[in-house]
Amino acid sequence: MRNAKAKGSKGERELVAFFNENKWSCLRAAGSGSSKYPCPDILAGNAIRRLAIECKVTKDRSKYFTKDEITQLETFSRNFGAESWVGVKFGGQDWFFVMIEDLKDTGSMFSLTLESAKIRGLSKEELIH
Amino acid sequence: MRNAKAKGSKGERELVAFFNENKWSCLRAAGSGSSKYPCPDILAGNAIRRLAIECKVTKDRSKYFTKDEITQLETFSRNFGAESWVGVKFGGQDWFFVMIEDLKDTGSMFSLTLESAKIRGLSKEELIH
Repeated sequence: MRNAKAKGSKGERELVAFFNENKWSCLRAAGSGSSKYPCPDILAGNAIRRLAIECKVTKDRSKYFTKDEITQLETFSRNFGAESWVGVKFGGQDWFFVMIEDLKDTGSMFSLTLESAKIRGLSKEELIH
Repeated sequence: MRNAKAKGSKGERELVAFFNENKWSCLRAAGSGSSKYPCPDILAGNAIRRLAIECKVTKDRSKYFTKDEITQLETFSRNFGAESWVGVKFGGQDWFFVMIEDLKDTGSMFSLTLESAKIRGLSKEELIH
């Protein structure tokens, strides 16, 4: 569990570096997921766009998001004036970014498979251009 | 030192609650100050405004900011498209918010005294209205 968390943080720090290297400002949220207020994992912005991103790193070929995570992302973005994005880094792949509409509603959760991410997802370069 | 850090975090969480109670979105940055990229302590926003805030909690009647802290705040805000603010909570007082121009340049640092904050500073209610 701690290992998974460390991998998630490492992945997020890579994204922070990527945004900064491209002249965006970006920050990782403290205690995202444990705060009682809506909060994405990462918030990036430039003069034109602002991206609230829920991030996951996984070794599996599919990743699940709770309904609460997605609702919080939407609430944060609506109040802040940001776009909502979901970022997943599958094993052996670079990041894929999809919109909430691209997630599959399984009833109790939302899911994204690697196959679906490859079809519908944006690379990080595509995300910012 | 750990105590000072804990008090700072507690003060920041109070601000996050305040912004959320007023329908702003707000997040605290993870590892602010230790990141190699510019990063404020708090970023708050609504549909119209975005505020990057460097926060300090102190028992003293004056508070110092390094030149690097202020330069990073300005860089972050310029790239993100946010307003730069400095928030200080002095002992026995509520938060005061001032703009960078309201800090005193001591040569090696910037400073804000309680007296100056009372004259030039905004309360948190004034900050968001």
